[in-house]
Amino acid sequence: MNTATHHSFAPDTLQVLAFDIFGTVVDWHGSIVLEMQHLYPQVDGDAFALAWRDGYAPAMARVMSGEVPWTLIDDLHRQILDAILPQFGLAHLDEPERAQLNQVWHRLAAWPDVVAGLARLKAKYILCTLSNGNLNLLTRLSKQAALPWDCILSAENFHAYKPDPRTYGGVARVFGVAPGQVMLVATHHDDLAAARACGLRTAYIERPLECGAKQPKDGQAVAANDLHARDLLTLATLLGC
Amino acid sequence: MNTATHHSFAPDTLQVLAFDIFGTVVDWHGSIVLEMQHLYPQVDGDAFALAWRDGYAPAMARVMSGEVPWTLIDDLHRQILDAILPQFGLAHLDEPERAQLNQVWHRLAAWPDVVAGLARLKAKYILCTLSNGNLNLLTRLSKQAALPWDCILSAENFHAYKPDPRTYGGVARVFGVAPGQVMLVATHHDDLAAARACGLRTAYIERPLECGAKQPKDGQAVAANDLHARDLLTLATLLGC
Repeated sequence: MNTATHHSFAPDTLQVLAFDIFGTVVDWHGSIVLEMQHLYPQVDGDAFALAWRDGYAPAMARVMSGEVPWTLIDDLHRQILDAILPQFGLAHLDEPERAQLNQVWHRLAAWPDVVAGLARLKAKYILCTLSNGNLNLLTRLSKQAALPWDCILSAENFHAYKPDPRTYGGVARVFGVAPGQVMLVATHHDDLAAARACGLRTAYIERPLECGAKQPKDGQAVAANDLHARDLLTLATLLGC
Repeated sequence: MNTATHHSFAPDTLQVLAFDIFGTVVDWHGSIVLEMQHLYPQVDGDAFALAWRDGYAPAMARVMSGEVPWTLIDDLHRQILDAILPQFGLAHLDEPERAQLNQVWHRLAAWPDVVAGLARLKAKYILCTLSNGNLNLLTRLSKQAALPWDCILSAENFHAYKPDPRTYGGVARVFGVAPGQVMLVATHHDDLAAARACGLRTAYIERPLECGAKQPKDGQAVAANDLHARDLLTLATLLGC
């Protein structure tokens, strides 16, 4: 597999790297499995993590369609959690237990390359988040994982979830730069394609184990992306950091 | 002068410290004087800095009254700059020179205690900005001064400038805490009074030279504030960090 595609891409014009978080920067699947093994070892943590995450896109779609009003991801996560608990024999969890479990999304672990990779990238670029996670979630998650963002941006800033163009265009507008001076870094091709349609640069990060060892991603390079990297250390090297 | 007032204030319930920026964290007056000495040594930098800052409150008042639409501080700074340049013999500055000078607000220097003080406070609290400066200004300023915020919040998040209650209440709402779990840290008593009216805790920082050596502030303690500190190192000590 090649590690970089070769466009007429001039990294010197780039000012801002905007990072997807769930899957790209933090290991949501592994963190939830670990939490379940600790709290509820009788439950299949792999299936539980996947079921929780499966509810995510449909829940955001109901918000973006206008079926339900603007809702923070912490609240969507909680609604999905309440819906799936009975399927896993956990219908008896009380309010504090549910609130505590829902906050696992504030405690997700970063992939092993992330802190060192971000430190290298930060010397050259403005680093921000661009996640559908709300500001509280992203701030607490980043604090516990020591992620050195220059700024935390969220769907909450734009009242729209990715892949709505307001989010990608919003990053460029916030920083007063052209869309082509922003690069989205993500492990999801649909996210990157939507960013590209708004004029952003794109970097794909592989993360083959995002959904656990039973559901590996193929991580194949898509030529439309400006960069393709195994992890953030490779990305730093590709960007000359 | 006492360094702390003695309320029934329980720091253990505190989760978030929200910092005013201009004057409290960065030395806008000294930074502008230095920039003027370098670029336009014939100009009285002290008077120039004060004139620029004097336009700030009236410009925000015109936005908040609805006389003009929502405007970022970068743009208000530029409007004020354009208005005062003739008074200082600088009416001849061209567009790139004006743009460059306006960005001095992205390059303000932190007071000497700030980086070390924030590092101590960060171990115990979520640290965020709460400034009327826009996100771009705050991000670039913080990056160049190495300020380790957990999150950058701005009037831009709330489409309202301090002292509008939406800003102070907005910080508590963003982080999902009660207003009394947030402390505003600022060197301006009007800012602190407005925060207190929203239920926030308050800490006054002295900064006697905020407006230059010719216009020292008295920095007297106001009993209504929970804490009164000479600088952020003293604040860290008062908060047990």
